[in-house]
Amino acid sequence: MKKILFSVLCCSTLSAMAQAPSKEVLKYVKPLIGTARMGHTYPGATVPFGSVQLSPETDTIPYEMNGRYNGDVYKYCAGYQYEDQTIVGFSHTHFSGTGHSDLGDFLIMPTQGKLQLNPGTAANPETGYRSKFSHANEVSEAGYYKVKLDENDIIAELTATNRVGVHQYTFNNAGDAHIILDLMSGIYNYKEKNTWTFVRVENDTLITGFRQTNGWARTRTVYFAMVFSKPFKQYGHEKQDRQVYQGFWRKFDQSKNFPEMAGHNIRAYFDFDAKAGEKIKIKFAISPVSTEGAMKNLVAEAPGFDFDQIKEEARASWAKELHKIDVNMVSEDEKTNFYTAMYHSFINPTTYMDVDGQYRGLDMNIHTAKDFTNYTTFSLWDTYRAQHPFLNLVQPTRNADMVKSMLAHFDQSAQKMLPVWSHYANENWCMIGYHAVPVIADAIMKGNAPFNAEKALEACVTTARHRTYDGIGYYMDMGYVPEDKNGSSVSKTLEYAYDDWCIAQVAKKLGKNDIYEEFIKRSQNYKNVWDASIGFMRPRLSDGTFRQKFDPLKTDGQGFIEGNAWNYSLYVPHYPAEMIEMMGGKKQFAQHLDSLFTMHLPDEFFAETEDITRDGIIGNYVHGNEPSHHTVYLYNFTTEPWQAQSRVRMILKKMYRPTPDGLGGNDDCGQMSAWYIFSSLGFYPICPGSQEYQLGSPAVKDAKLKLENGKEFVVEAKNQSDANVYVQKVELNGKVLNRRYITHEEIVNGGKLVFYMSAKPNKRV
Amino acid sequence: MKKILFSVLCCSTLSAMAQAPSKEVLKYVKPLIGTARMGHTYPGATVPFGSVQLSPETDTIPYEMNGRYNGDVYKYCAGYQYEDQTIVGFSHTHFSGTGHSDLGDFLIMPTQGKLQLNPGTAANPETGYRSKFSHANEVSEAGYYKVKLDENDIIAELTATNRVGVHQYTFNNAGDAHIILDLMSGIYNYKEKNTWTFVRVENDTLITGFRQTNGWARTRTVYFAMVFSKPFKQYGHEKQDRQVYQGFWRKFDQSKNFPEMAGHNIRAYFDFDAKAGEKIKIKFAISPVSTEGAMKNLVAEAPGFDFDQIKEEARASWAKELHKIDVNMVSEDEKTNFYTAMYHSFINPTTYMDVDGQYRGLDMNIHTAKDFTNYTTFSLWDTYRAQHPFLNLVQPTRNADMVKSMLAHFDQSAQKMLPVWSHYANENWCMIGYHAVPVIADAIMKGNAPFNAEKALEACVTTARHRTYDGIGYYMDMGYVPEDKNGSSVSKTLEYAYDDWCIAQVAKKLGKNDIYEEFIKRSQNYKNVWDASIGFMRPRLSDGTFRQKFDPLKTDGQGFIEGNAWNYSLYVPHYPAEMIEMMGGKKQFAQHLDSLFTMHLPDEFFAETEDITRDGIIGNYVHGNEPSHHTVYLYNFTTEPWQAQSRVRMILKKMYRPTPDGLGGNDDCGQMSAWYIFSSLGFYPICPGSQEYQLGSPAVKDAKLKLENGKEFVVEAKNQSDANVYVQKVELNGKVLNRRYITHEEIVNGGKLVFYMSAKPNKRV
Repeated sequence: MKKILFSVLCCSTLSAMAQAPSKEVLKYVKPLIGTARMGHTYPGATVPFGSVQLSPETDTIPYEMNGRYNGDVYKYCAGYQYEDQTIVGFSHTHFSGTGHSDLGDFLIMPTQGKLQLNPGTAANPETGYRSKFSHANEVSEAGYYKVKLDENDIIAELTATNRVGVHQYTFNNAGDAHIILDLMSGIYNYKEKNTWTFVRVENDTLITGFRQTNGWARTRTVYFAMVFSKPFKQYGHEKQDRQVYQGFWRKFDQSKNFPEMAGHNIRAYFDFDAKAGEKIKIKFAISPVSTEGAMKNLVAEAPGFDFDQIKEEARASWAKELHKIDVNMVSEDEKTNFYTAMYHSFINPTTYMDVDGQYRGLDMNIHTAKDFTNYTTFSLWDTYRAQHPFLNLVQPTRNADMVKSMLAHFDQSAQKMLPVWSHYANENWCMIGYHAVPVIADAIMKGNAPFNAEKALEACVTTARHRTYDGIGYYMDMGYVPEDKNGSSVSKTLEYAYDDWCIAQVAKKLGKNDIYEEFIKRSQNYKNVWDASIGFMRPRLSDGTFRQKFDPLKTDGQGFIEGNAWNYSLYVPHYPAEMIEMMGGKKQFAQHLDSLFTMHLPDEFFAETEDITRDGIIGNYVHGNEPSHHTVYLYNFTTEPWQAQSRVRMILKKMYRPTPDGLGGNDDCGQMSAWYIFSSLGFYPICPGSQEYQLGSPAVKDAKLKLENGKEFVVEAKNQSDANVYVQKVELNGKVLNRRYITHEEIVNGGKLVFYMSAKPNKRV
Repeated sequence: MKKILFSVLCCSTLSAMAQAPSKEVLKYVKPLIGTARMGHTYPGATVPFGSVQLSPETDTIPYEMNGRYNGDVYKYCAGYQYEDQTIVGFSHTHFSGTGHSDLGDFLIMPTQGKLQLNPGTAANPETGYRSKFSHANEVSEAGYYKVKLDENDIIAELTATNRVGVHQYTFNNAGDAHIILDLMSGIYNYKEKNTWTFVRVENDTLITGFRQTNGWARTRTVYFAMVFSKPFKQYGHEKQDRQVYQGFWRKFDQSKNFPEMAGHNIRAYFDFDAKAGEKIKIKFAISPVSTEGAMKNLVAEAPGFDFDQIKEEARASWAKELHKIDVNMVSEDEKTNFYTAMYHSFINPTTYMDVDGQYRGLDMNIHTAKDFTNYTTFSLWDTYRAQHPFLNLVQPTRNADMVKSMLAHFDQSAQKMLPVWSHYANENWCMIGYHAVPVIADAIMKGNAPFNAEKALEACVTTARHRTYDGIGYYMDMGYVPEDKNGSSVSKTLEYAYDDWCIAQVAKKLGKNDIYEEFIKRSQNYKNVWDASIGFMRPRLSDGTFRQKFDPLKTDGQGFIEGNAWNYSLYVPHYPAEMIEMMGGKKQFAQHLDSLFTMHLPDEFFAETEDITRDGIIGNYVHGNEPSHHTVYLYNFTTEPWQAQSRVRMILKKMYRPTPDGLGGNDDCGQMSAWYIFSSLGFYPICPGSQEYQLGSPAVKDAKLKLENGKEFVVEAKNQSDANVYVQKVELNGKVLNRRYITHEEIVNGGKLVFYMSAKPNKRV
């Protein structure tokens, strides 16, 4: 074998191939997982952390909803719902798993026969350019998507590089073919989202332009450069706008072969003659900077027009990333869950810069990322919990670059704040807390800080002292957010207190004692919303009293956000032992957790919150949304850690299935998936910013983490089976581990963690 | 005297001052000329060819007109009408003399007392932020504007650098002061013009942002950076938009002290404490590139905050340009006319790039002007006639840069055409012809072509062969534009023919014989719309027949644009002798001209055309609009050149007066003024692209043109008086000139042209 390899090494290309990880692993990636119901994932083509997410749209927000917020927009956060039977087209940008919507830029659709420039309806797809399709004719893989469009028997194939979406349309029937470029289509408020769009036909194969939107991102512009594999015959467009100035029309027939289109609502088409079986390919590069930037991206990433080659490169990039963990599971289905979870956790944050490092910042100026990759799509209220800790462990370089991106965000921010929920250099201020802080603290505390840590601390402190932001002034003055002054006050108080603890840890490490003192004091503020008389965290008013009206089961209007007091009261990840003491001690607390997992929560208590559905609930425990993601591991701080073990395995089974409806809630930019990965490996970071991972019950048979520092960390679960969910004994590097956590250092130093599994709990551990 | 000068020269600053032209000339500049009725000039502050035109707005298009075209918009092309009694505020960009409107970016208004964020109405100014004012308290000079705002006795003063508007507000009463920044205000369709606006409060003195509009320019963005001379106390804004996403409001009180404002319709305010007599100053830089670019411009051009110094620099820049011609006139009023005409002709085209040469091109990408100043605001249907020839003579470097700007436009144009009517890198396709061609040809033919002339010719040819543009295809195939296929067909045919002659001249000079042959043939096309049976140019149909319905007096719908057959039939500037022969010979033609100047044109014949009003008409001769600007000089080609002389002087008197209503029509970016300057000097370029200037009757007593090549050309009119309008004899450099024209070479070689004036015509010349 050695000899053969040696002879192969003579050829450098083959050598690279020989060293490239096997693509076998890709068969365990099913991007369709989470595309039904509330997972909000998309089935299309992307590469790891790629700028382009080229994916089918099965519906758009009804045209008629113009001007009014449409509840259905939530359903279509990722543009695709598995239950739908028509495809409207393929657009280039999509969120993965979010609970709010945007993007859906530059929808492309191939049609034949009569040109129709409206999308038609799901009920009557023949009235527009959309087409029926069937899942039987659909292939969704890492980096590749394929579907047959029934209407004209057109085979659509999609793949991508980081910044270029690549389409291949095979026209099985000869005849007039149209490629529609719909700039009106988009995700969010359909008709009024565009502030402006602009298209230039540069020559008979190259189109450039941009789309500027006011959606979730308030001021967002995406530029493009689009190249056809063969020249179009003719082209044209329709505009739904009132025409302000008529000069253009007087001079030209603007509807046909007029190379400059601009307006709010434009649908363009490009006509071709198609032979039977002919493939028309499109390369579609995007840029946050300019059409010039898009051209640079196109030339750098996709110089040729070999669809299969680009597809194989996309697949290779996935194989490389997924092989950071080699895993064996009890079943193929679980292996599918595992690698699809890795796939989903390696989608976000997304690259946000051109190949030359340029990107548009929050100030709308062009900045250059020097010596780092600039990322965007920071769903931090979700992802600080497990997604960033996971990246901090297996993608430390990228995670440090994400921190650098957050610090660049801070520098550009008019409010001088770190990102809260940011995409495309827009802060949308979604959800609560300042959870860039735990991501930064986690990086610094775990020794992954190739950036100016003091400056990072300063950014954290400045953010945390922003008195006019979301009740922080009250919080600073009173030690809690008063509910009568600022809603969701308990959630805010609890999360601020945790974030403050993170700041204190960094301050201590950097020897900033005054900051440490200030923030370690603030980290105690969770106590200020604890109502011992009822045993729950509870909203307090500015006069110091607890609010009378209160229902600890109800999700809406009780001082919490997307969670009820039962779940949210357990949110003191930085002081679990103290919290448990406060809540009556270990025994009582374990019983409290038991109740949480076993009681029945009637629908009426969460029906008003779209992020929480029956799919994601076990008892009153809400796994489908993030605030409880650490909860099950709190058993470790009681006398009953075996309950963490069994319940973790139960959650893994119930909340993750290898089917389109397999996710119990929004994947939330990888957080739900990262929970799966950590918990399957047998450990979970309940408190990012600390060194500790709580041990649970691994679902893997074995797993090898191949770390960037060259070390390997192996997890083995002896006697693993679906029944053997309890841990009898844990050994780290051959020595029995007499604690319920491992440290980050222990992992990154490499070694082996062995769990001895059994069907019965070991109550002495 | 010599000694004193020598001692002063020790100090370089004083030396520069010693050499600087006297500012005495500035007293002859009255920017208010043309601000009443249809002149469409503005009274505010600008520097020669400056990017910023900081000027008061006396009204805006009524708010209620939302969505509908408002006729009044024409009246307010420059934002100011002399008859108005209130000032709404001071905005930073204005057209000078145009017949279509746009701009009016970034309106600023100082107020005191109760904060009112709406402009109020002219009838009830107290209901909004506008103020009454009086012309008695108004000073309008080159580079400086001052007015007292009656409502709170605030003295507003304005000056400018090329890219920075500078405001100085003196609050005569102590108390709360507000500076309002209205991003909704604008010229054109008031409410729907903004596609997006964006404001960032960077710190307590610096604001940045941009305004993006869809007005006459379809896709235009202007960025700004605004600095206060003292920190504001607080600030806020109101937004008239529907709020799409509420996240912002939940987290912050966005209305007050929230540093990021974005939307379609925003009015911001900044509050100060003002002591009695306190001056609050503002520097407001603009950029076509970015707020970063605006900051660069601000720092480079206005580093300090000394209003008076900046004002003196603005005045010095005007003095320098105006001293390119030293002139003596019969009266002070005429000298005012002359220098105000020079002032108006040195406003456009305007600089369109940042101090570092960057600008946003037609493709919306950022380009850099290498080794030239990039200009915009090309009202070419107007300005190719005399404005560009005037610049080609007295500002040859700038004029060549303007040609380079047009060639850059061509390179960026999606249609591959030279500019028609272009501003801010937007082609608005206003009016007819491809009159960048005569500007380029005039530069090349007169030896002012420091650019690639072959490439320029190619751009001209490509433009002239653009078959889908405005009837050119028909014109190329049939030799005329058929009226049934494309309106204003006679005007187009005639103007294309002239432009084609220009191309032929350049082709000949560059030895491109095939191009010469093609276009010299096309230059004869004027004959194809000549109806000998009625003695007028007349619209022809695609079947070759002349259209039956025809009225040679009527302006509207007769195959012409902004002119009737009486005026437009004389438009063959490249072949005047041939045209006169065609029209019956010299004698008959002179009588025809007599009729034109003396007949009565009833209002009904032009009332539908807003560019032609009674103010601009003499008989049936329309001086207030451009098509006839060469007409009076056609007498030179008859046996009665003395009629040109007397009528030129009559036009100078009637159409130009040193009063706000002193212009007989839109100044049209300097064209009307350039006519005045040339005609006052005694010669006029009826056919740009040729070397010849037709001699008329000078109105100057003497004039010295100080040319860029260091040569001086002196015009002297002996026995000059209002009565002595006839030229008895002309001497060039002491020798009698026995022809009715002088050549460009004769002027630029320097020398002296002496007219001997008399009250009686010399019919033997």
